[in-house]
Amino acid sequence: MFDNDFHPAWLPDTALRTVGSRRLALAADAAGAPPADAAVLATLETELGRATTAHGGAVVGPDDSPDLLLRLTASSAPGFRLVRHDGRVTVTAASPTALLHGYFHVVRLSVAALDAPSTDESHAPASALRMLDHWDNVDVHPVMGQVERGYAGGSVFYDAGRVRTDLSRVTAYARLLAAVGIDRVSINNVNVHAREARLLTDDLPEVARIAAALRPYGVRTHLSVSFAAPTTLGGLPTSDPLDPAVRDWWRAAADKVWTAIPDFGGFVVKADSEGQPGPFAHGRDHADGANMLAAAVAPHEGLIHWRAFVYNHTQDWRDRSTDRARAAHDHFAPLDGRFADNVIVQVKHGPMDFQVREPVSPVLSAMPGTRVALELQVTQEYTGQQRHAVYLGPAWSEVLRWQPWDSSTVRDGGTPVTVADVASGRGPGRRAGGFAAVANVGDDRFWTGHPLAQANLYAYGRLTWDPTLEPTAVLDEWVSLTFPDAPAELRAAIHAILDASWQTYELYTAPLGVGFMVRPGHHYGPDVDGYEYTPWGTYHFADRDGIGVDRTRATGTGYTGQYAAPWRDVYESPTTCPDELLLFFHHVPYGHVLHSGKSVVQHVYDTHFEGVERVARMVERWDEVAHLVPDDVAHRVRDRLAEQLRSAVEWRDQITTYFWRKSGVPDSNGRRIY
Amino acid sequence: MFDNDFHPAWLPDTALRTVGSRRLALAADAAGAPPADAAVLATLETELGRATTAHGGAVVGPDDSPDLLLRLTASSAPGFRLVRHDGRVTVTAASPTALLHGYFHVVRLSVAALDAPSTDESHAPASALRMLDHWDNVDVHPVMGQVERGYAGGSVFYDAGRVRTDLSRVTAYARLLAAVGIDRVSINNVNVHAREARLLTDDLPEVARIAAALRPYGVRTHLSVSFAAPTTLGGLPTSDPLDPAVRDWWRAAADKVWTAIPDFGGFVVKADSEGQPGPFAHGRDHADGANMLAAAVAPHEGLIHWRAFVYNHTQDWRDRSTDRARAAHDHFAPLDGRFADNVIVQVKHGPMDFQVREPVSPVLSAMPGTRVALELQVTQEYTGQQRHAVYLGPAWSEVLRWQPWDSSTVRDGGTPVTVADVASGRGPGRRAGGFAAVANVGDDRFWTGHPLAQANLYAYGRLTWDPTLEPTAVLDEWVSLTFPDAPAELRAAIHAILDASWQTYELYTAPLGVGFMVRPGHHYGPDVDGYEYTPWGTYHFADRDGIGVDRTRATGTGYTGQYAAPWRDVYESPTTCPDELLLFFHHVPYGHVLHSGKSVVQHVYDTHFEGVERVARMVERWDEVAHLVPDDVAHRVRDRLAEQLRSAVEWRDQITTYFWRKSGVPDSNGRRIY
Repeated sequence: MFDNDFHPAWLPDTALRTVGSRRLALAADAAGAPPADAAVLATLETELGRATTAHGGAVVGPDDSPDLLLRLTASSAPGFRLVRHDGRVTVTAASPTALLHGYFHVVRLSVAALDAPSTDESHAPASALRMLDHWDNVDVHPVMGQVERGYAGGSVFYDAGRVRTDLSRVTAYARLLAAVGIDRVSINNVNVHAREARLLTDDLPEVARIAAALRPYGVRTHLSVSFAAPTTLGGLPTSDPLDPAVRDWWRAAADKVWTAIPDFGGFVVKADSEGQPGPFAHGRDHADGANMLAAAVAPHEGLIHWRAFVYNHTQDWRDRSTDRARAAHDHFAPLDGRFADNVIVQVKHGPMDFQVREPVSPVLSAMPGTRVALELQVTQEYTGQQRHAVYLGPAWSEVLRWQPWDSSTVRDGGTPVTVADVASGRGPGRRAGGFAAVANVGDDRFWTGHPLAQANLYAYGRLTWDPTLEPTAVLDEWVSLTFPDAPAELRAAIHAILDASWQTYELYTAPLGVGFMVRPGHHYGPDVDGYEYTPWGTYHFADRDGIGVDRTRATGTGYTGQYAAPWRDVYESPTTCPDELLLFFHHVPYGHVLHSGKSVVQHVYDTHFEGVERVARMVERWDEVAHLVPDDVAHRVRDRLAEQLRSAVEWRDQITTYFWRKSGVPDSNGRRIY
Repeated sequence: MFDNDFHPAWLPDTALRTVGSRRLALAADAAGAPPADAAVLATLETELGRATTAHGGAVVGPDDSPDLLLRLTASSAPGFRLVRHDGRVTVTAASPTALLHGYFHVVRLSVAALDAPSTDESHAPASALRMLDHWDNVDVHPVMGQVERGYAGGSVFYDAGRVRTDLSRVTAYARLLAAVGIDRVSINNVNVHAREARLLTDDLPEVARIAAALRPYGVRTHLSVSFAAPTTLGGLPTSDPLDPAVRDWWRAAADKVWTAIPDFGGFVVKADSEGQPGPFAHGRDHADGANMLAAAVAPHEGLIHWRAFVYNHTQDWRDRSTDRARAAHDHFAPLDGRFADNVIVQVKHGPMDFQVREPVSPVLSAMPGTRVALELQVTQEYTGQQRHAVYLGPAWSEVLRWQPWDSSTVRDGGTPVTVADVASGRGPGRRAGGFAAVANVGDDRFWTGHPLAQANLYAYGRLTWDPTLEPTAVLDEWVSLTFPDAPAELRAAIHAILDASWQTYELYTAPLGVGFMVRPGHHYGPDVDGYEYTPWGTYHFADRDGIGVDRTRATGTGYTGQYAAPWRDVYESPTTCPDELLLFFHHVPYGHVLHSGKSVVQHVYDTHFEGVERVARMVERWDEVAHLVPDDVAHRVRDRLAEQLRSAVEWRDQITTYFWRKSGVPDSNGRRIY
């Protein structure tokens, strides 16, 4: 059972104060609506009642001069339309879920939505597909725990080997998601272990219970499945995607899923990656595998999210010609055009694995004939594990706004195509794969362990709805909702702590795009050589003379050639390569002078000392304003910041010591290095 | 339930062929004997019957002219006496267990015992205390498994959270131990987790079942206990060793143990070490803690084995003044003279933790007023984990024969005192603590995973019975028993594989006594910097100029000062320090020239290439003779040797690459380094 006294995140009752004090109306006929729509309309009624009861307003009839009228209309437009006229606001949408999103839009804007000049605006998400992937296990995994790469306690869905009896918190979670426009959730780990595989079959009634808990807020359920399920669950002799019996098995399995859950979304698959089964074992390729599943779910308008995170994780560290960064493009780009319409190839934002700094994955712009989704990581696996305050909005914004081609490749309106455009179907291929991300919530009282990590979940929803938003503005929204009536002092402090926190984290961890340098296994804290001699393909090649990975076409792995112009040339030369990615693309001497004018090694010293100083200031800033937030938030954040400072010092000392011991170059500022 | 088709180790039926073909007699009156003695006498009867039934001899009366007469006599001498006269052999002993050891002595010598010229010999072990410590868990530990640092499957005692129902294999194990003279076993992990703690109380009847399974072969049972048991099991508010209620609790607990198991041996304690509770929490020292337990067990003539493995495992890697090597001496030497008579301070052979090469612990010679036991590690945690063929007899022999003082410190007979003498009560203090070792067996078919690792268990028993034995001769004994009628070719091959295997392992792993360089956690395979920035106190301090730990009095941690002369001076200077310990005691430049005439870095290159070549030859030798052993042995050894070769190559490449990248000094032989 849950302690229902969990933190309200960005929907405390006071966030509904303004809307709840008005006259609200809902114009929608639930009669005859599909059950999923009816469920959301019922939620809207409940939400209006809840807000007005709490704050003195009233739910009135559509014709009773409501201040805010929510109306379901027949339309083919996505999203919702907001008309404000004569001090009254009407939100219309073609679907109950879009109407719910419109309602939360008004909640978010509050007075600015209700009491502003007349307007007529249409709001639609960049892409119809905005999804969160949970890496939750049903059974507690002996190494990975209940939630793989989870830093916020146990799972909201599962506890100790079964689906939770009380799923009320799942509904509360769906409400938070609806308020930021997320409407799809995959509920189990893409590393599908034996227990979790059964969600697809024996435990379908339990999955249906989860779907029922998500549904009232318009959130659809997806499942991660094992490609070997026909063998492991079905008892077939093979899982060959071209085998008719295998195809029949998946078709029958899909039929049963949709019978149990008519609004089910589809399957997420990690195949032939890090030990997960896939089509390779049967001599088939990823298109064969994905299309077979696509055929099984097509009658139900289901989707297959097929992850492009495929590489050789048993690489030989001695072999410098194999480059993990190349792998996804090498595997998938040649398959462009072969994937079925309901297959979405889900591509991590960088070519490696959610490092604090990576170039944008070249796969995103290499498959115009494929629906490609951008995959982000909200859970902070490599960015402080929700013990460090790291606001990822700016990092994602940088990726979303990145232009894979030169300015001659434009979208409607003539602006150069961005990654967000590609994912939204506005790139050259005009095929939308949308957005996916690994979730960061658990059964922790604050949902995300670190209370400030809530801002990442919030920003993921907001930035994928509208990738042109400024991440600091999104942060401000989050502060306004989460800390209603926050004094300017608190608002300023949170901005001071979070705005540049991603760069701060970068300052004190792996430098110049080199990546990793984390403790193997749990990935928390520094271990410069931790992965250097492992099979994982994540090396820095430091010796006494220099460091970095030569990924050039001229002398390296040729990875730069996977980019379109101009990037294939920008990255090719250390002269034009951006400093922050230098060691990702080039092996350079420690004395190499950056565009900043500093040598690589002095840059490493300076950034690491600066990073720690910045964290020390974050601690101070919080101490100054902690009295302005509830005690539980104040204490939790203080504890986490103390750990962040300890960890940042450890990072600084290990990294500077490593570079000093290797290079023998003293710090020009004479600071303490060990 | 066990598969009883496990390997017979050094007691195959054919090993009893000679004895079993003769006329054997037992002269002993079990009437009135204590139950433990009666059980061993019954075993002797069974053994004689079993051997003669299988091999055509006969059990006859003592007066029926037996070829071998075993007679229990009244005597105060330890061990047994063997008189051979007129072609008849009489073995006499004062205790049934010693008589059993005498019987297995005859089995081992076979024809050489029965058909040789007349003789009158007395055989007694160096020390009355020769013990094996099992680090077996009752519950499977989520990280450490059923047996901590176990490389031979599950536990012979426990399975899935309980004591095994069928303990017949425990008795078979006791028989193997009796055949090498081991008569004490501690049956649970010194890291006493919650489940295991209950062996002392609720599960005492189950412990009694294990004791009953060991007893027929004269093996007495000891338990590892948690110092916090009065609190965690007894519900007392404190475990302070000077608190009367705590003392009463332990006294009562001990009374119950001895009531259930009258021949129980005593308790093993790991206190204030690696997170285990101990007296420090109560402001008491190790003597206070040990003596309190000693008082509780004294009425039953019980022993307390109190481990000296105490150090700060949350050290700061930046702090070069703290030296883990110093810790045991710093903690225990000042307490010399304060421990009760039935306390044995159990000291690891080296100051660190069972590395392939360490100096001998200075604690062993620093406590003349204390019973000090030498602790060895039969389980190959840091020496290849029973995947590598590493015969440890020569390593232990080196420790046992090591002379902690100069030649003026002599024992009876005038020979210089050795470590074996100290442990056997022939050192300056004349107090015997005996020998203890971490066991290497599990429920694996071959007992030890690697069939050749059986030789280590055998050698531990034989070398602690008689530390003057040559380890190669002991190996020969083991071959003769394990592979009866082994052709010279097989015998030669096993010697070729095992005789120098310890040095071979040293050649391809951490060089020159520097230690560790293993993967953190599981400790298998190389990771040169794996522990370099951790809290564990195991560093090498490599930079681009040099490597090693300065433990001198002049400029380092002062550890050399813990030794008596001449070692305090021998180790102090790199000129006199033995090459194989150079990096343990000194931080030197890569170009430092060893006594061998090679530079440190060239030595590292040469030894690592040579080590791999040696393993390749081990593989070849086994392939040549594998047809001479049973198929199961042949295949298992072949598989393990293949893994050893793979692992040795990995060690070679990582170590040579690390030294090359750090030093920039090329291999003078131009071999491939990465």
